[in-house]
Amino acid sequence: MISVGIVGASGYMGGEALRVLLDHPEVQLAWATSRTATKVEDFHPNLYGTGIELVPPDEAGACDVVFLALPTQASIEAAARFLDLGCRVIDLGAAFRLSDRAIWEAVYQQTHGNWPLVMEAVYGLPELHREEIAVARLIANPGCFSSAAILGLAPLVSERLIDTQRIVVDGLSGTAGAGAELARPAHHPEIGNNLVPYNVVNHRHSFEMEQELSLLADEDIAIHFTPVYVPIVRGILDVCHVFPHETLSRDALLELYREFYSDEPFVQVYDCPRESNVSWQYRPYPWVSAVAGTNHCLIGLDVDETRERIVVFSVLDSLGKGGAQVGIENMNLMLGLERTTGLQRRALHPG
Amino acid sequence: MISVGIVGASGYMGGEALRVLLDHPEVQLAWATSRTATKVEDFHPNLYGTGIELVPPDEAGACDVVFLALPTQASIEAAARFLDLGCRVIDLGAAFRLSDRAIWEAVYQQTHGNWPLVMEAVYGLPELHREEIAVARLIANPGCFSSAAILGLAPLVSERLIDTQRIVVDGLSGTAGAGAELARPAHHPEIGNNLVPYNVVNHRHSFEMEQELSLLADEDIAIHFTPVYVPIVRGILDVCHVFPHETLSRDALLELYREFYSDEPFVQVYDCPRESNVSWQYRPYPWVSAVAGTNHCLIGLDVDETRERIVVFSVLDSLGKGGAQVGIENMNLMLGLERTTGLQRRALHPG
Amino acid sequence: MISVGIVGASGYMGGEALRVLLDHPEVQLAWATSRTATKVEDFHPNLYGTGIELVPPDEAGACDVVFLALPTQASIEAAARFLDLGCRVIDLGAAFRLSDRAIWEAVYQQTHGNWPLVMEAVYGLPELHREEIAVARLIANPGCFSSAAILGLAPLVSERLIDTQRIVVDGLSGTAGAGAELARPAHHPEIGNNLVPYNVVNHRHSFEMEQELSLLADEDIAIHFTPVYVPIVRGILDVCHVFPHETLSRDALLELYREFYSDEPFVQVYDCPRESNVSWQYRPYPWVSAVAGTNHCLIGLDVDETRERIVVFSVLDSLGKGGAQVGIENMNLMLGLERTTGLQRRALHPG
Amino acid sequence: MISVGIVGASGYMGGEALRVLLDHPEVQLAWATSRTATKVEDFHPNLYGTGIELVPPDEAGACDVVFLALPTQASIEAAARFLDLGCRVIDLGAAFRLSDRAIWEAVYQQTHGNWPLVMEAVYGLPELHREEIAVARLIANPGCFSSAAILGLAPLVSERLIDTQRIVVDGLSGTAGAGAELARPAHHPEIGNNLVPYNVVNHRHSFEMEQELSLLADEDIAIHFTPVYVPIVRGILDVCHVFPHETLSRDALLELYREFYSDEPFVQVYDCPRESNVSWQYRPYPWVSAVAGTNHCLIGLDVDETRERIVVFSVLDSLGKGGAQVGIENMNLMLGLERTTGLQRRALHPG
Repeated sequence: MISVGIVGASGYMGGEALRVLLDHPEVQLAWATSRTATKVEDFHPNLYGTGIELVPPDEAGACDVVFLALPTQASIEAAARFLDLGCRVIDLGAAFRLSDRAIWEAVYQQTHGNWPLVMEAVYGLPELHREEIAVARLIANPGCFSSAAILGLAPLVSERLIDTQRIVVDGLSGTAGAGAELARPAHHPEIGNNLVPYNVVNHRHSFEMEQELSLLADEDIAIHFTPVYVPIVRGILDVCHVFPHETLSRDALLELYREFYSDEPFVQVYDCPRESNVSWQYRPYPWVSAVAGTNHCLIGLDVDETRERIVVFSVLDSLGKGGAQVGIENMNLMLGLERTTGLQRRALHPG
Repeated sequence: MISVGIVGASGYMGGEALRVLLDHPEVQLAWATSRTATKVEDFHPNLYGTGIELVPPDEAGACDVVFLALPTQASIEAAARFLDLGCRVIDLGAAFRLSDRAIWEAVYQQTHGNWPLVMEAVYGLPELHREEIAVARLIANPGCFSSAAILGLAPLVSERLIDTQRIVVDGLSGTAGAGAELARPAHHPEIGNNLVPYNVVNHRHSFEMEQELSLLADEDIAIHFTPVYVPIVRGILDVCHVFPHETLSRDALLELYREFYSDEPFVQVYDCPRESNVSWQYRPYPWVSAVAGTNHCLIGLDVDETRERIVVFSVLDSLGKGGAQVGIENMNLMLGLERTTGLQRRALHPG
Repeated sequence: MISVGIVGASGYMGGEALRVLLDHPEVQLAWATSRTATKVEDFHPNLYGTGIELVPPDEAGACDVVFLALPTQASIEAAARFLDLGCRVIDLGAAFRLSDRAIWEAVYQQTHGNWPLVMEAVYGLPELHREEIAVARLIANPGCFSSAAILGLAPLVSERLIDTQRIVVDGLSGTAGAGAELARPAHHPEIGNNLVPYNVVNHRHSFEMEQELSLLADEDIAIHFTPVYVPIVRGILDVCHVFPHETLSRDALLELYREFYSDEPFVQVYDCPRESNVSWQYRPYPWVSAVAGTNHCLIGLDVDETRERIVVFSVLDSLGKGGAQVGIENMNLMLGLERTTGLQRRALHPG
Repeated sequence: MISVGIVGASGYMGGEALRVLLDHPEVQLAWATSRTATKVEDFHPNLYGTGIELVPPDEAGACDVVFLALPTQASIEAAARFLDLGCRVIDLGAAFRLSDRAIWEAVYQQTHGNWPLVMEAVYGLPELHREEIAVARLIANPGCFSSAAILGLAPLVSERLIDTQRIVVDGLSGTAGAGAELARPAHHPEIGNNLVPYNVVNHRHSFEMEQELSLLADEDIAIHFTPVYVPIVRGILDVCHVFPHETLSRDALLELYREFYSDEPFVQVYDCPRESNVSWQYRPYPWVSAVAGTNHCLIGLDVDETRERIVVFSVLDSLGKGGAQVGIENMNLMLGLERTTGLQRRALHPG
């Protein structure tokens, strides 16, 4: 059995990692920490009955793999410490995601105390970096909006089919994405019947999208990204608008996407034949409820042939394929396990 | 007192007109119809105690103003009938909104049986057509997404500041916009934790946006519009992305908008000084909860000076400023009343 | 014009008082305070554009009526201060509601610093204490669950029709009832798909119910009360179960209730004839959405003749008839105004 | 492998059975039917990619176990047919739950066409009838409210600790309980901010509660039951109020419950030590979000020692432990499998 530790298990990201790892057949939980050490159900009522006690961070010792769910500065320190202990480290936060130091320091408004670790870290999006992940010591797990947008746009960008300076992405996020810490826009009376745009310019995740898609395109691309909180709990929908160099049909694009992701277990191209029994005008597009709680990303699209626009819909769970679960997918890759091990949960319907 | 009738008062749009007109100080309700004539509270629990009985359509006779909340074909017939009776008619539906017959018939997938009425009808957006509305016999009340987008973009388009072929609008709509008729995507188990894109290409409202903004721009513009249902009840948010010809500052744009709407009672430019006590990164943008139930449209914006994008947020209630209430604003204009009469309801907080 | 001040206008209760008073035709706002003095829209986005500045508490001087929306201890001090200045005072909090000192001090876990004020205060439920309210200097505005339950049970208790030791009340509350202060059970990710029982034994409001209903019954009654937060924003539903001494029909009880409240402008007995066009099994009972934002209480009921139980449903808005708006109703009574002045807002549908 | 069929897989109950059975390690899906045979994702977007085609009912042949998710009349016919084919049958509906024919026919307002099957059927609540289930041919799977209330009250009733004529149960249900068929009270604009009491007298499930608890008590007991729809999707909370013959402490009762359910894998007694780090007044009671999607029932309680009332909170998922999943638990028992096989899904947090 592989021994795994989680630093920062009281928040939503660490709690999700804990939940999935508890049922992972190849893993044994070594420890999970919280500054206010206590029973796990004080934070995560769904884990009532597991008997897990969260321990203070200083009781966390060496183990095979360590997940970090920490503020940025704490992540940088913890990554160094556990790498020195010989652990593999998967950082679920943002400490190591951007390879341009000037951008990172501007975006996170601090000096990075250990840039060599960034240089070593691999951006943990398995669909793009599977082989590097397999041999990495340190993984920078992607942001949720980033994973959805990169997966949604990669086929178009790789094939150089679109105007790379006019990519517009609207990211709609459930409130789980705001974290466990209490905050005004996640206060139910404020958000229960509301829509809350935030960080409208230079959202941190937009730089990840630009970094990864520019690598794929081999040119500098621009992402025009706007996030909005919506009153669902889990899941995000990235609506991506792009302008093709020449007219492409919906069918041709769906075929391109299916081909691009043909070997991928966790990305599905969503479609619904128009001759289906279901006459709903709603059905050809993926629903975020169909990925909640899972490690799946569903991608659908449509084409406005008159106005020459492609719109791509990419949905995932910010704690699942956009967070802790893709971290466990990365762990599986690092350890030579079947990539889907422990990650086969389906979404509910209704849910 | 002005006598007013409502044809089709059992749905959400007709019910909203009824609620507001009941408290309008210059209006007396002549009648309100429903095919299944019954007590009003069978449809609208909020009107319990008013004692109103809905009457069959054939009991509806002449009065000063008639509101139509009907399917398209029925609207065309009813408009002709009530105009012949000498009534002024405000159609809350889509029968008379588009002045290009080929587009209308393609979009609504039927032959229009009375095109001369379309030629006579005035598009009922008071901020653009106040003077024509005042003398009109027939008003085509705008679509909800259309009003929000047109108001959000009019200053930029009028001043010819932006690329008019790359305007992207994401419209997030509460389920009241889906109407009172039961439908799968408005079934609570399906939408309660979900986001549902629909009619992604050639949504009917996108043609209204193009028609009205092209008039303002004096050139053909293209709107790339995508609607998504979100699990709130009332209100819509149009997120409009545009690319300026040259860099414009946020402050300059706010000033432009304030100037453009300086005489308008129902459009507010929303801003929040950054030195405010409120440190939330969320505050400079308007909240849809702040317009629910009202005839107000709030507009906010931001500028990404690096990537040269302007994003405009426009919020209104699809039954309020985007529906029945703006219809009553149009009625006020047609009758020479103070424009705000009967329309001064504030939103709730929280709400 | 009557000059009115609000102490503590940054929370939900004070903000609601402010919103209603702004549109009250006989009132002029003297001032509204907040410890962190600022623009009103920093707290209440619905009041954007009013230009109101909240002032520090020490700038609040004498005026005709003062509303207090404060923590208990601060209320006691402020009430004394403003009464000394010759103001009438309406306390929207819990400082003066219970006339039994031992109970108050046990429930609120503090010594009451000014018990003579409690002795003078009138419990501000107009349906029971209209005449005393009219001549009072100090009003103790009722708790939201209390108002709903007392109004729902008063006819049965007054007529001595039921077992007064086996009254069970389940109170379902929207999150607005939790207040503006951030709290775990009102954090959207926690409550968005959840139901949260709290304060299950000896909830503060249960003592108000017992106090007022015991007065009506002229005997000591027991209320078995349990509150649960549910993911709506506004409104509460008290489900009251009682056991009659002898079998009573639904029709007889509805008649009793209609009679009891025949002169009351803000309490309606809700019913829906079974021969209605609406076949829903849901309709005879009042919906909380039909009172959101209003000063109305709707009461419906049913009878299980086999098992000899009466169930009464009482709905109101915790900030409306259960909070700030009934405070303004009390103000109207104190000042000899028409009781409904400024309180005629209707609920929305849908809403 | 055991071959299993599902009759009626297009609804929520059948779809949930299908989802769980797809991942059950001992089961092979023989077929799943729908009158409108089609791809499974037309009904259940969460099963996109499984490739399952729903077949017309007449293509359903013999297999080891058949689940029925049908209207009552259709269930009676299908049960007979599949029993004749030698299948074991688990009816997820209400056709066989009540052993008193007069009550069944009054409640379901029809003549029962095959009463001998009712006599043979076993009420499928494993905690009460495990041994009979193991040898049954036909299982009547319990109603959701019934399971929650019976499990919540069984220890008190068995031990004869309470007044059995004054048991009050308020059942709060998510909209999944209303089923996939479109209905007014599950229309999002109506229920999104609302609470909807329904079937307030003689709800069908109340008779199951009385039947099963009377058996346990060995006397006729009365359940005063009231259901209310609340705007969550999954899960129900039964709040059960009972009056003990003599005062019992919270600790003693918790101990009684723990003892009663000590061997049960799917019932947990929920508690939270008061000395916990978590100071929330909300924590000792189980949250419905902690059982959504699972086969677990959580039970918590509190005691009002002054007024001598016990309140029991019982939460489960109406499609999980209150529906399809407990059906699969019954199947495991019938087939001699480990009872928890295929049923170990945990709830999400947040979720």
